[in-house]
Amino acid sequence: MDAIEVIRAKRDGQELRPEQIDWVIDAYTRGEVAEEQMSALAMAIFLRGMTRAEVSRWTEAMLASGERLDFSELDRPTTDKHSTGGVGDKITLPLTPTVAACGAAVPQLSGRGLGHTGGTLDKLESIPGWRASLSTDEMRAVLSDTGGVICAAGGGLAPADRKLYALRDVTGTVESIPLIAASIMSKKLAEGTGALVLDVKAGSGAFMKDVDSARELARTMVGIGADHGVRTVALITDMSTPLGRQVGNALEVAESVEVLSGGGPADVVELTVALAREMLAAAGLTPGENGVKDPAEALADGSALAVWKRLVRAQGGDPDAPLPQAAERREVLAPASGTLTRLDAYQVGLAAWHLGAGRTRKEDAVSFGAGVTLHAKPGERVRAGEPLFTLHADDPARFERGARALEGAFDIADAGHEPRPLILDRIA
Amino acid sequence: MDAIEVIRAKRDGQELRPEQIDWVIDAYTRGEVAEEQMSALAMAIFLRGMTRAEVSRWTEAMLASGERLDFSELDRPTTDKHSTGGVGDKITLPLTPTVAACGAAVPQLSGRGLGHTGGTLDKLESIPGWRASLSTDEMRAVLSDTGGVICAAGGGLAPADRKLYALRDVTGTVESIPLIAASIMSKKLAEGTGALVLDVKAGSGAFMKDVDSARELARTMVGIGADHGVRTVALITDMSTPLGRQVGNALEVAESVEVLSGGGPADVVELTVALAREMLAAAGLTPGENGVKDPAEALADGSALAVWKRLVRAQGGDPDAPLPQAAERREVLAPASGTLTRLDAYQVGLAAWHLGAGRTRKEDAVSFGAGVTLHAKPGERVRAGEPLFTLHADDPARFERGARALEGAFDIADAGHEPRPLILDRIA
Repeated sequence: MDAIEVIRAKRDGQELRPEQIDWVIDAYTRGEVAEEQMSALAMAIFLRGMTRAEVSRWTEAMLASGERLDFSELDRPTTDKHSTGGVGDKITLPLTPTVAACGAAVPQLSGRGLGHTGGTLDKLESIPGWRASLSTDEMRAVLSDTGGVICAAGGGLAPADRKLYALRDVTGTVESIPLIAASIMSKKLAEGTGALVLDVKAGSGAFMKDVDSARELARTMVGIGADHGVRTVALITDMSTPLGRQVGNALEVAESVEVLSGGGPADVVELTVALAREMLAAAGLTPGENGVKDPAEALADGSALAVWKRLVRAQGGDPDAPLPQAAERREVLAPASGTLTRLDAYQVGLAAWHLGAGRTRKEDAVSFGAGVTLHAKPGERVRAGEPLFTLHADDPARFERGARALEGAFDIADAGHEPRPLILDRIA
Repeated sequence: MDAIEVIRAKRDGQELRPEQIDWVIDAYTRGEVAEEQMSALAMAIFLRGMTRAEVSRWTEAMLASGERLDFSELDRPTTDKHSTGGVGDKITLPLTPTVAACGAAVPQLSGRGLGHTGGTLDKLESIPGWRASLSTDEMRAVLSDTGGVICAAGGGLAPADRKLYALRDVTGTVESIPLIAASIMSKKLAEGTGALVLDVKAGSGAFMKDVDSARELARTMVGIGADHGVRTVALITDMSTPLGRQVGNALEVAESVEVLSGGGPADVVELTVALAREMLAAAGLTPGENGVKDPAEALADGSALAVWKRLVRAQGGDPDAPLPQAAERREVLAPASGTLTRLDAYQVGLAAWHLGAGRTRKEDAVSFGAGVTLHAKPGERVRAGEPLFTLHADDPARFERGARALEGAFDIADAGHEPRPLILDRIA
């Protein structure tokens, strides 16, 4: 077998044979297929697509390139969530302890942020002492003791995906639905979860700008999950406006703790509960039966918060320590009175990034306190001259670019507002 | 400007802007655009195509990556020919001295063979003493003294094309009409010829298997030539069956000398004369006017042969020395009597390659004496048990693979034979 044969087959619109896929992923991981050959193949896949059989096999081959965790010895079923990423998307933080409090185990391997969306690990690292890197044994111990674990994915999981992702990033081949689906699913399947719920976001702040693309990505991933014997469900959720009222690392931790304490913004609570119920159902657990709690109850009775504190402590963090705050704050005032009819997720994400909450390159540090507080959400009334946003930054020189990103990010009108539902579709 | 922006534009079906093309070719030549980025772009071009404006600019940018020869100080117009390559295609050998004998100057920069088609330089190197590598000054002197020169293209001409061609070769992006056209034309325009005739071959032994693809390639190249102020004409010629009766390096030199001596196979003579007339016309020369000879006359009266001998001598060769012969010969006999109705160019080329006439890798040596002699051409009668082919090889171990390549390469039938015309179309 050789790389040119595989590239030509895909280039000419043929379905790749299983042995071609296995060979090319393995040979690429070993360095026998060169980067320039894989990038030509990635572009051919981008433009020609892949069938369900191809994308499942591609995922399987990437999975086979590394180790695969196994939590089947736990005394309860495992269930996991993956979000395609959005602005203010802190859902993993309240969700993991909530599902654990209800009776499932949640092995949540997460990533760091790049560009305008934040990363779960960056948010948690704003908690004094908390560490993201655990050995497999530590991960197993935390999961077994607390019911959940949120940590960095080790380099041993799907190394082919790691290499391919870095290549796609510099060759204009990122936005390919089969390649995105295979990348996400190879990592998630390597974590050894028994059930998986996908939060596929659609809107300006998401990777998929429209609902149809989000549906196609969701269907592809649900298909891969089914082909690998993992019960997989996807919710398509709105990311035209930020989730919650806080965007930024420590700001989002604080908001997550509000939700875990039974309060917090309605949209964050709604999505946390909806995803938690899907995760329990996918794991075969029914609230009310065998001591399984309903997620809304776990948030209300303090049990989710208690798991959160145990989980943070198990990874070295102090859940009661004050969170970092930015050195400087600045208000952006509403220019008119009326109803906030639009608040653009992408522009808010960009503002937070300019304020220091995100990174430009992988090796950059993030500012834990930086970000944006939203004083109004779409559908709410605002009054001219009152604060619309609070900007947080360590370096006041950052305020100008942050504020500029918010220009044109919102509309205030006299008209009534038809709210967009948060959960747009469900794919199973 | 960055590579990802250019890749994405082409990937999404946009026409590249002139400054994007200039930048990407220059940055690639300098190593700033990485191989994996250029291969992704090449695949996007392969699948999305290029407009005439794009392909002309791409050619211009590759031309600008290196030096450009200039023969405008010669006392007669320059005219050149390029063939897309075929089996038994020795036409450059009789053509160059013929056109020179008629009154034009022919700066013919050629290549070596790879795969089943031979290279002009490999053929000429079978002449004892002849050398392919000339400095620009030597090239100019030979051209000025003899009216022709056939030599290797120096590394300074279109270095971007050299780099890109090597990349396309390993990334499944060779067979793209705009990329092929730009590659050929950037080298030909760098030679500084004033007129250009293209021999675009169609058929099993050619790069373009069907006439429509050959026409499209021809039209693209003629357009590039016109955009660069070089009078360019293309003939589409048949390559379903080999040209002439000899396939192999020294074998083809001997056949070329037959043609230059007023004899030789009818198809080689026909194509030589047709291309020579086009080259003269493109250079603005009319036989019968101002002492310009007709090519058929130059072949008949010995003037073309005289130029050939001067040209070979000027590059160190002895035109009267015996040519190398293969150490061993083997006959393949006709299995039946009848008319030869088909003789497949690709399979004959493959047989010659297996016998040692061609090379597998650039650094391989070729056997000068190896090849195949055809005792019958399509339309001719054959008799069972009489020789159909003579195989020539230095190593008798090669005969088996050579003979096997010829199995199924021909049909012998009682039926009459409708000959395919040699010249299928003309694009100007």
